[in-house]
Amino acid sequence: MSKNGTTIGLGIAGFGTVGAGVWNVLARNGGLISERAGGALKFEIRRIVVRDPEKVREAAAPADLFTTDWQSMVADPGVEVVVELIGGTDVAYELVAAALMAGKPVVTGNKALLAERGADLFELSRKHDVPIHFEAAVAGGIPIIKAVQESLVSNRIDSIAGIINGTSNYILMRMTEAELDYPDALKEAKELGYAELDETLDVNGWDAAHKAILLGTLAHGFPIDPEEVYVRGIEYVRPLDIRFAKNLGYVVKLLCIVREHEDGSIEIRTQPSFIPKTHILASVNDVFNAVAVRGDGVGDSLFYGRGAGQDPTASSVVADLVEAGRFLRQASEGGHRGFLPYREQGVIKPIDETETAYYVRFPVTDRPGVVADIASLLAGAGIGISGTHSPVDPDEPDAEFVDMVFLLHTCPFGTLKGALKKIEALDCVTERPVVFRIESL
Amino acid sequence: MSKNGTTIGLGIAGFGTVGAGVWNVLARNGGLISERAGGALKFEIRRIVVRDPEKVREAAAPADLFTTDWQSMVADPGVEVVVELIGGTDVAYELVAAALMAGKPVVTGNKALLAERGADLFELSRKHDVPIHFEAAVAGGIPIIKAVQESLVSNRIDSIAGIINGTSNYILMRMTEAELDYPDALKEAKELGYAELDETLDVNGWDAAHKAILLGTLAHGFPIDPEEVYVRGIEYVRPLDIRFAKNLGYVVKLLCIVREHEDGSIEIRTQPSFIPKTHILASVNDVFNAVAVRGDGVGDSLFYGRGAGQDPTASSVVADLVEAGRFLRQASEGGHRGFLPYREQGVIKPIDETETAYYVRFPVTDRPGVVADIASLLAGAGIGISGTHSPVDPDEPDAEFVDMVFLLHTCPFGTLKGALKKIEALDCVTERPVVFRIESL
Repeated sequence: MSKNGTTIGLGIAGFGTVGAGVWNVLARNGGLISERAGGALKFEIRRIVVRDPEKVREAAAPADLFTTDWQSMVADPGVEVVVELIGGTDVAYELVAAALMAGKPVVTGNKALLAERGADLFELSRKHDVPIHFEAAVAGGIPIIKAVQESLVSNRIDSIAGIINGTSNYILMRMTEAELDYPDALKEAKELGYAELDETLDVNGWDAAHKAILLGTLAHGFPIDPEEVYVRGIEYVRPLDIRFAKNLGYVVKLLCIVREHEDGSIEIRTQPSFIPKTHILASVNDVFNAVAVRGDGVGDSLFYGRGAGQDPTASSVVADLVEAGRFLRQASEGGHRGFLPYREQGVIKPIDETETAYYVRFPVTDRPGVVADIASLLAGAGIGISGTHSPVDPDEPDAEFVDMVFLLHTCPFGTLKGALKKIEALDCVTERPVVFRIESL
Repeated sequence: MSKNGTTIGLGIAGFGTVGAGVWNVLARNGGLISERAGGALKFEIRRIVVRDPEKVREAAAPADLFTTDWQSMVADPGVEVVVELIGGTDVAYELVAAALMAGKPVVTGNKALLAERGADLFELSRKHDVPIHFEAAVAGGIPIIKAVQESLVSNRIDSIAGIINGTSNYILMRMTEAELDYPDALKEAKELGYAELDETLDVNGWDAAHKAILLGTLAHGFPIDPEEVYVRGIEYVRPLDIRFAKNLGYVVKLLCIVREHEDGSIEIRTQPSFIPKTHILASVNDVFNAVAVRGDGVGDSLFYGRGAGQDPTASSVVADLVEAGRFLRQASEGGHRGFLPYREQGVIKPIDETETAYYVRFPVTDRPGVVADIASLLAGAGIGISGTHSPVDPDEPDAEFVDMVFLLHTCPFGTLKGALKKIEALDCVTERPVVFRIESL
């Protein structure tokens, strides 16, 4: 047993979209999380700091957890990990600093706080030997922090190129696809909830720049002064420029670049840029985010996913909670991070019960009635046909042996196999049919 | 200080491509790795097990490190972490088991070993409380093991769809692009070193299936019996089928699927499949790998990169070494995984010195000489022009105010700014020019 039992008490400051998401995911998947963490970690939210405790909220947290007093939350002995989700750089700074000084690990999604005042907070983290985790601060559910910090630890990071502001990406996509001008695309983004009421930081490039600063700091190991970062937003992009870009083979994206030069200097900037439309980043649409990382060992890699939203961001917050929990409990118990199975057994679905649509090619003797014979056997098995085709070889229009392709609706593989067995027995079928699944991904 | 100093002794079994890659990356980036791991972890290769110690090798390891005796390597008190890179499932099993029983963390890239005999090895790992790490076993440099196991720990993993055999992917791509038949595409892959001399496991689907078994085990927590996995390879794919797929809007990829069903059963299979050509997996070409993961929190995410090769695979092995090193040293010292800056400062490249090509749009009064005036000022600054264009509005062919676009060769931003200042002073330029960088990624 660990010093305080296996349950880790959490204090959450801020209970908006992401905070409620954390509550929900712990309620929904708490058991799974505990199993995966070796059965030794459970999480319990014990204090929630909000401005108005009376407000009706989405997540079903009991009223007695709510408080307006962040100091008492941080000081509460039942609170072992502090989750900062209030945003801003003033109260949030005080709260995070107080937690670190109290020896309590911090999990935050606050990119502005860390980009602007991270140096001081990291120093407190070092001094008090207590971690501050911030996977949720960059690219929502994409685990790019852990990738750069841990998975690519042996790489000199040559460059990072990211699309890490979903609002801007949506607006630019609509300006490209629908040829909207900027104000109309912004209006649409607001109506869909993809832009905040105050969209300033999203469209002026600073939200993305804060994230780029964090990625640059991780990749190159030193605090980056926001004053030294070149930042331009998308407010001045015109449909004319987007049209030109398209004609020239480019797309316009709000791009963050962090690049190490031969002289050791770091180029870091955020601005709307032309990128070749064949590059994988060019196909990042809607509010998705993607970060391309080039390391001297790993070469080119890309991390893609939802860059914002309740569940993806909560996914990263909870991953950090597990990190913090392991630090508090398992370090002292020798627990390790190698994988261990957490279920003795599971059920593999028999392949005959798995379903997709199919492409089936039958090598046949071309005679009247072939399609009818095959189709009626398929019908007998209850398998729908969405198309048939037989390519005619122009050099041999009356070939005796041809291929007949059937496209089949979704059905269990076993059903298909049964039908194929009967079809193979037909005189006109000369070889075994060839089957490909048509995947719906 | 830690119990054995800050240097961690390694024993490597197998010194082929990946083993030499690990040697090289520790030599090249050892200092950086140590800094990033808080300065406390250094690695030293102390024993290398090979079949023929006399063989001339690429990496400059001293002759006295080589041995043919794996038992003595595992037993060597200077060896604290065992790296298994010999492949196969017999000697490799004995070696990994012996290391775990001796309480030494294991790092391996051996997917066949873990897919076929992992259950026993994980049991030893649990029993002796010593980790076995295997990031390199799936998708080379892509950190998909860590992503599924740690970053997505709070997610029910609804589905995984992966292109995780580079050889097959290359062959299918060449059959698609160049309409080669299978034997010719295989021959080409061999000539380029993308296929082994014995290509069996790559093309028959089993290499990918072993990786899918590991991903499935991570995602769902129980050992998966290879006998229960449906596996088909690409040997029977014909150009005809690829052509058909193309006409229907699909591409053929060797795809691994791991999917959880409502009834809790797991669908797991590897086979050449049709996937919609608009899906992001369809654009994974050459020997690249990609894994799409759908979690109940994170939604759709994708991890893309080099799935094989010396440096990418070594990148994952060394990331695992750092994990093992942290387990051995920092757990007992309270060291945490929160990020800490490891350099006091770095140099940000002044934005004026950063270089790209540019798109510049000048709003101008349309009169003869405009292009010449702008072009000569650009020439005076030493900036090359790769194209100019002015769109003619069909409704207003003789408009007085038009936009003139210049595409400029790569030059420092400061040089461009200087030239633009002069150009803005021209009478014919009516508004500030609009600049976009054209990124080369």
